[in-house]
Amino acid sequence: MKQSVYDLTQQHRSIRQFKDEPLSKETIKKLVQAGQMASTSSYVQAYSIIGISDPEIKEALKEISGQQHVVDNGYLFVFVIDYYRHHLINEATEGNMKPSLESAEGLLVGTIDVALAAENVALTAEDMGYGIVFLGSLRNDVAKVSELLGLPEHVFPLFGMAVGVPSEDEQGSPKQRLPFEHVFHENKYQSASTEQLEQIKQYDEDIQAYYEQRTNGQRSESWSAQISKMMGQKTRPDILDRLNEKGFIKR
Amino acid sequence: MKQSVYDLTQQHRSIRQFKDEPLSKETIKKLVQAGQMASTSSYVQAYSIIGISDPEIKEALKEISGQQHVVDNGYLFVFVIDYYRHHLINEATEGNMKPSLESAEGLLVGTIDVALAAENVALTAEDMGYGIVFLGSLRNDVAKVSELLGLPEHVFPLFGMAVGVPSEDEQGSPKQRLPFEHVFHENKYQSASTEQLEQIKQYDEDIQAYYEQRTNGQRSESWSAQISKMMGQKTRPDILDRLNEKGFIKR
Repeated sequence: MKQSVYDLTQQHRSIRQFKDEPLSKETIKKLVQAGQMASTSSYVQAYSIIGISDPEIKEALKEISGQQHVVDNGYLFVFVIDYYRHHLINEATEGNMKPSLESAEGLLVGTIDVALAAENVALTAEDMGYGIVFLGSLRNDVAKVSELLGLPEHVFPLFGMAVGVPSEDEQGSPKQRLPFEHVFHENKYQSASTEQLEQIKQYDEDIQAYYEQRTNGQRSESWSAQISKMMGQKTRPDILDRLNEKGFIKR
Repeated sequence: MKQSVYDLTQQHRSIRQFKDEPLSKETIKKLVQAGQMASTSSYVQAYSIIGISDPEIKEALKEISGQQHVVDNGYLFVFVIDYYRHHLINEATEGNMKPSLESAEGLLVGTIDVALAAENVALTAEDMGYGIVFLGSLRNDVAKVSELLGLPEHVFPLFGMAVGVPSEDEQGSPKQRLPFEHVFHENKYQSASTEQLEQIKQYDEDIQAYYEQRTNGQRSESWSAQISKMMGQKTRPDILDRLNEKGFIKR
């Protein structure tokens, strides 16, 4: 019997080592079609999905991400915000859509549209027995990704996703999330800093224990420490410029 | 037997009329937990979920969205980008996270994180027999939503979601998406405008036929026409200002 989607979500973890078993064309199509049926803001459908089968392009994308699983996987998708089709309609009808295309609202709508579609792909793939990992690392060099994939104006690469049969070396368990009480608020956002920091401290202890156990005491890093380290330096400082270049968030 | 996630995705359509059957606390918790297990960029978990049970707040949110189903549903969620906890860590450690918090990259990461979690909630709810609809309409007045829900700096309301048992009046079928060939590109983005416009024209005819059939000839609007109408005027022109106010995308 098939498991429930709830149970499926609870088993999720990122997979970074895949068997050498390429996805079939039929499976790739099903995954894309699953993505397409996700909710889309006012029917705008502001995304496209690029499937990467060319080994040279995969290799070049791996250079950008620095991750071997960009090459070694069952299949590689790149998800892009796509207002190029809307732009073409605008040109053909001599319309007045430019302010919308270039607005912050347009960027939010496109980003949300892409991510909803991608999560449909992820859950559908996991339900079929595949593992997945998101590749935000492609934003390390948006200009280069755009060049490699021939992305025109009004198209912006948000992330990739590697899909495949998990390797037997892939051991592990789902990573514990922030406490339910910390993430879920009823009616009003609970912003009292003492309480929030207390919840984070408790969570930090759980995460440290998890790493210690998993690495036989080799690693013991709290969530806060990871966040401080990662966000303590500004990553991808060029994203606003890259968005502007592609016609996004100009007003 | 449970259906596959692929089959579940293919049946998706937005539900806007619900029976008067509130979700149980247990169901609400399961849905939030399903959301929490979605992939999150570098473990950042940059979101919170506000559950709205207070009838006065629901009524006020309905005024903002202009949609009756914001009040009449089984439960109402509001999804927010949340870097407040990261900001607290930064203050407590006298860290240097402000440039990251205020970056365009941070906005993308937060928006993606929220949407991935929300789509997990959506599919889990649908799998349990509920219907859902996303409420981007809450962005009609971000300042008012922030006030109603007490959202502090570094927290931005992206959208709501109404969940509930579909009313028997809810007839209809999934809305046809853009052609697979139009959305899926292999290795290179196919930007030839003649081809893209031809695909859109074909799709427009399909959509017109769909509306004509559904409304007994009362309505016959192509996809392009809908897009031109919607995007022909700049909607939510204040979003960039609202983002800036909340500490987003300042650099």
